[in-house]
Amino acid sequence: MEVSIIAIGDELLIGQVTDTNSGWIARHLNPLGWSVKSVRVIGDDSEEIFRAIDAAFAQTDIVLTTGGLGPTKDDITKPTLCRYFGGELIHSPEVEQNVLEVLEKRNLKINTLTAAQAMVPSSCRVIQNRVGTAPIMWFEKNGKVLVSMPGVPFETEQMMEREVIPQLLKRFASDEHIEHRTFVVIDYMESRLAMTLDEFERQIPDYIHLAYLPKPGVIRLRLTGKHRDAATLCAEMDRLSAMLKEILGSSIVACEDKTLAAIAGDMLRERGLTLATAESCTGGNVAHAITAIAGSSNYFSGSVVAYSNAVKHEVLAVKKEVLAEHGAVSEPTVKAMCEGVSYLMNTDCAIATSGIAGPGGGTPEKPVGTVWTAVKCGDHVECECYHLPGTRDRVIDRATNNVLCHLIKMLRQCDLK
Amino acid sequence: MEVSIIAIGDELLIGQVTDTNSGWIARHLNPLGWSVKSVRVIGDDSEEIFRAIDAAFAQTDIVLTTGGLGPTKDDITKPTLCRYFGGELIHSPEVEQNVLEVLEKRNLKINTLTAAQAMVPSSCRVIQNRVGTAPIMWFEKNGKVLVSMPGVPFETEQMMEREVIPQLLKRFASDEHIEHRTFVVIDYMESRLAMTLDEFERQIPDYIHLAYLPKPGVIRLRLTGKHRDAATLCAEMDRLSAMLKEILGSSIVACEDKTLAAIAGDMLRERGLTLATAESCTGGNVAHAITAIAGSSNYFSGSVVAYSNAVKHEVLAVKKEVLAEHGAVSEPTVKAMCEGVSYLMNTDCAIATSGIAGPGGGTPEKPVGTVWTAVKCGDHVECECYHLPGTRDRVIDRATNNVLCHLIKMLRQCDLK
Repeated sequence: MEVSIIAIGDELLIGQVTDTNSGWIARHLNPLGWSVKSVRVIGDDSEEIFRAIDAAFAQTDIVLTTGGLGPTKDDITKPTLCRYFGGELIHSPEVEQNVLEVLEKRNLKINTLTAAQAMVPSSCRVIQNRVGTAPIMWFEKNGKVLVSMPGVPFETEQMMEREVIPQLLKRFASDEHIEHRTFVVIDYMESRLAMTLDEFERQIPDYIHLAYLPKPGVIRLRLTGKHRDAATLCAEMDRLSAMLKEILGSSIVACEDKTLAAIAGDMLRERGLTLATAESCTGGNVAHAITAIAGSSNYFSGSVVAYSNAVKHEVLAVKKEVLAEHGAVSEPTVKAMCEGVSYLMNTDCAIATSGIAGPGGGTPEKPVGTVWTAVKCGDHVECECYHLPGTRDRVIDRATNNVLCHLIKMLRQCDLK
Repeated sequence: MEVSIIAIGDELLIGQVTDTNSGWIARHLNPLGWSVKSVRVIGDDSEEIFRAIDAAFAQTDIVLTTGGLGPTKDDITKPTLCRYFGGELIHSPEVEQNVLEVLEKRNLKINTLTAAQAMVPSSCRVIQNRVGTAPIMWFEKNGKVLVSMPGVPFETEQMMEREVIPQLLKRFASDEHIEHRTFVVIDYMESRLAMTLDEFERQIPDYIHLAYLPKPGVIRLRLTGKHRDAATLCAEMDRLSAMLKEILGSSIVACEDKTLAAIAGDMLRERGLTLATAESCTGGNVAHAITAIAGSSNYFSGSVVAYSNAVKHEVLAVKKEVLAEHGAVSEPTVKAMCEGVSYLMNTDCAIATSGIAGPGGGTPEKPVGTVWTAVKCGDHVECECYHLPGTRDRVIDRATNNVLCHLIKMLRQCDLK
């Protein structure tokens, strides 16, 4: 099935809020064999909403809308949906009861604006929003379906998973099988990977598609196949997966869709190893990436964000002479930081970063983007120096990914535990 | 002027990449009095691209496209642009020279795929992409303009700022003045703020618009005015701003668009104070938010991410009895962490967090979402306990914002320095 998405909200068109709902919806519909045909982002404007629904239904039988609801904007989307699907706004005691329950959980009281959320078009079927106050509304017209959901990502995600996706699957059942295989690849830039896989791509049958999904320092390859016969599909996906592993060898660091922090985390957990980080230029971003993984407390002891030289010396025991002679952004300093945090937190492995993220702080010898990193596994420490392009955010992200890649490679080679 | 945006790329429709370009473009065009009328996100599909351009030109005279270019997808967007605007693909020696220079800076060699980027439609004017290999292409037809830009955010942002925005402003000059005033408000939820400002909103003239821009724990209010007479506009904006300050008082923590970390950072810098953080459940996210601000090294000494109890005890000197008696997620522990990191890093102020971000680790007494935070200014320490709803990410984000709000409030009240 194909789906159109309409994201509604002035806040999206002025760039204050980024529409992350559409990506989330796509990521959760794709594994079911459904695809998103297009996304339209429009403002809180009745005519625009009406036209967008019309245009979307011209393309697909299912339209999902997010946003345009909520206490301060209920006066536009709901009347427009009434105009499109017929009926009138009526008071729903069930929705009001749900609003009261949700607000009570948050220790809040109902007011005239939140109470107005209980008004819904008579032409829709309400799906109660258990995690927020704006009701989810399901409309049908000429065999086509529109589901209106709130703009708050947490609410849309929760309610899509619990109610909307199961109900859509029931309403639009299919007998086609779908399979995905994802491979996380390091060491390649996109164009070189495409050239390496040129011959391989010619062997992919029509019912299987290969997608390149690049992020800084890492590329995900995804095979997606659709076929009526599950066994045929599975056998072909197995054959292609084996070929990819043969061609790319150790550059494949995972055969499922995981972040670098999750890949490293799984390797640490499986071997009973512990990790600490000492961060200067990445300012806690490596620790944040690692601790974003649930269960990371099993292998991650902690981090010292050593922004000042005083902290590098006093907490991480980097010698004053090393800092004076080589500077904070240098191989000896980053190596000492790595050993220092590993000793301090008594861990098997450690990561350290020190660099100039910019925009200030660069010198002719060490321009903005110069980053030294170190990785320790057991007694073995390796350092790298990178010259990373781009803005402060980008330098921090690239340095974080690069040092996690390095940790993964060293964990594969070392024989600790 | 009104602008339509078309974001092209299969990776956007499968949710692998989030379209952040459109938001960036909107944020940078709005202050110039330009607005984004709609955003269309479509796949790498020639018919879709053609239709989207047609539909966009029906709405606005300016269309900006991002993506659909680059070594592995050059075969779709460029021929479609040729079909729409006429002409044929020709080899551009200038673009090839630029590709060579960009690749050389990255220590990469040209290959057949990157070389193909030098082919451009004869109907466009090329703007050299100084930070990437995909050329920017400017098309004109019947007085309307389409600018095709790469999908890589860094490249689009750099080239929009340096070339595309200045050239668009020159091409579509206007004599209307525009002014923005942004206020960062804490202590309010959106519906209560809307009710508080009900009377105020009635007094806003037609040529000025008030927008509510909520994020977890903080709401930005933005007044945007457009008028031919700059003095009239400025006087009215001043009057409304004064009214807002009168109504909201100390709940306004900044009169410009800044993050909480930037607001706290400016307060610290102005008073010559230093800060450290001790983080358990936020796992480095507070440090990451603070160090995302350029120049934060002037007031931020560093952080200890104390994920394990051993680190809390050994590095932050939290007494073993405190951990044993009250647990890691408790007022005595978070207070001791805060004092510990402040002593360790010799800072005036400190922040500490300890909580259960989930999904595991909850108990009946301390369910998932329980977070203790502490803020220290000089000798004064205050603690708070929150029960935060939602996923792991959301708990971490909310806890980060809450503790930064608390720091801002304490900095306003305390008389350090």
